Amino acid sequence: AHHRAHESARRGVMTPPQPRPVPGVALVGAGPGDPELITVRGRRLLSRADVVIADRLAPQLLLDELPSHVELIDAAKLPYGRAVAQEEINRLLVEHARAGRYVVRLKGGDSFLFGRGGEELAACLEAGVPVEVVPGVTSALAVPAVAGIPVTHRGVAHELVVVSGHVAPDHPDSLVDWAALGRLRGTLVLLMGVENLPKIAAALRAAGRPPQTPAAAIQEGTTTHQRVVTATLDTIAERVAAEGIKAPAIIVIGDVAALAPRSP
Amino acid sequence: AHHRAHESARRGVMTPPQPRPVPGVALVGAGPGDPELITVRGRRLLSRADVVIADRLAPQLLLDELPSHVELIDAAKLPYGRAVAQEEINRLLVEHARAGRYVVRLKGGDSFLFGRGGEELAACLEAGVPVEVVPGVTSALAVPAVAGIPVTHRGVAHELVVVSGHVAPDHPDSLVDWAALGRLRGTLVLLMGVENLPKIAAALRAAGRPPQTPAAAIQEGTTTHQRVVTATLDTIAERVAAEGIKAPAIIVIGDVAALAPRSP
Repeated sequence: AHHRAHESARRGVMTPPQPRPVPGVALVGAGPGDPELITVRGRRLLSRADVVIADRLAPQLLLDELPSHVELIDAAKLPYGRAVAQEEINRLLVEHARAGRYVVRLKGGDSFLFGRGGEELAACLEAGVPVEVVPGVTSALAVPAVAGIPVTHRGVAHELVVVSGHVAPDHPDSLVDWAALGRLRGTLVLLMGVENLPKIAAALRAAGRPPQTPAAAIQEGTTTHQRVVTATLDTIAERVAAEGIKAPAIIVIGDVAALAPRSP
Repeated sequence: AHHRAHESARRGVMTPPQPRPVPGVALVGAGPGDPELITVRGRRLLSRADVVIADRLAPQLLLDELPSHVELIDAAKLPYGRAVAQEEINRLLVEHARAGRYVVRLKGGDSFLFGRGGEELAACLEAGVPVEVVPGVTSALAVPAVAGIPVTHRGVAHELVVVSGHVAPDHPDSLVDWAALGRLRGTLVLLMGVENLPKIAAALRAAGRPPQTPAAAIQEGTTTHQRVVTATLDTIAERVAAEGIKAPAIIVIGDVAALAPRSP
């Protein structure tokens, strides 16, 4: 198995699921916040890591439990801007793996849904470093679910759109077709959308999404700090502002948002 | 804690994450196929179950490991049609929980993305049975990721649509606006779409999605039986047919599909 992994590394291909990790990199999604929502495999690889590169949303409890010999790198504290920091993370993954260390890249949620896991995977493959992808429970689905909102529901919503709201609809860098999204009638899950919510809600309404469409915002979902605000597309932005909902938060727009159970 | 859970049950509200399970129901997503991709919490609750109601896509290894005293109910073998079977599952969840048993409803992937978890949750809440939602790793993201396809990628795709293909676009029961989806330029993940793929691909092309858009189909992803076929929107249906790709399979349409690494 070691020889095959070595061969794979030289050819820059992905290693299939292995009975035990070989020196290299694991891209692990840590889940939406509750530390028990990491996968069994992610937890196991974490316990064998020599180096852990964690981001801001990786559950703190998982990091607190790491043995003292593990080198913990906080990616949020790398002394660079956003774009450079990602290059630096890619470089660290490759460098530590080449030095024979087992590196776990630990991200909140899933690494491949707005997590830049694809860039880290490409960096490892290009460098010929063995790399394993360990998917995580994505906040986009889990946070609504734990708050009682199924993102699809028979007869209610048969489509799910997940989109990032971190670029405003009127910004020249926006790659999201909000007008097209506003014409859909399924569930829209908005990540990183608190700041631009007034503009996004307005863009969806302008495209024809009815103002009475149910909506919900969930802050720090799945954790003991969870807060849920329900409203409509017309009122969600002002309700979120009035309640002081802050990132990390997930916003759900669509009829399923009305399925959230009443709080006790 | 027990008293509070009892109170919650009477009021039909969701129990927050508990230090230990109380008699009731857990709706657990088992992940995309690899038995290690269940969550730590899901695995823990499974080990404490008195009754497990499993569906066809729950990893067999997890079921094989259940102690002999656990009552295992195979939901796929309930002697009813599809719609009735769901009512029967809801009834079994409530009945066993009311008899004081701890019931785990184990589904492949995540229970709340085309998993009818919302219906099971509602049944438990209506019956006043304590119920916990344990989100799972959804196949919609994990299967592409493990095959090397990130569903979003900086500069390539900033939108994700997940949709079920089990109803054909020309069927009167179709609730999916394929024309609207065909106008989007992000990633489209199609679940249960093998059978209707020729019609779905044609509908997307007719709506303006370019025929050269990269596409991939992944059968039994994350397992040792994984098979990946890459093509374009124009050719994916014939490639899937030619290669004999069968359910369970995930189809990815969008520029990210071109990021899949070459097979060794």
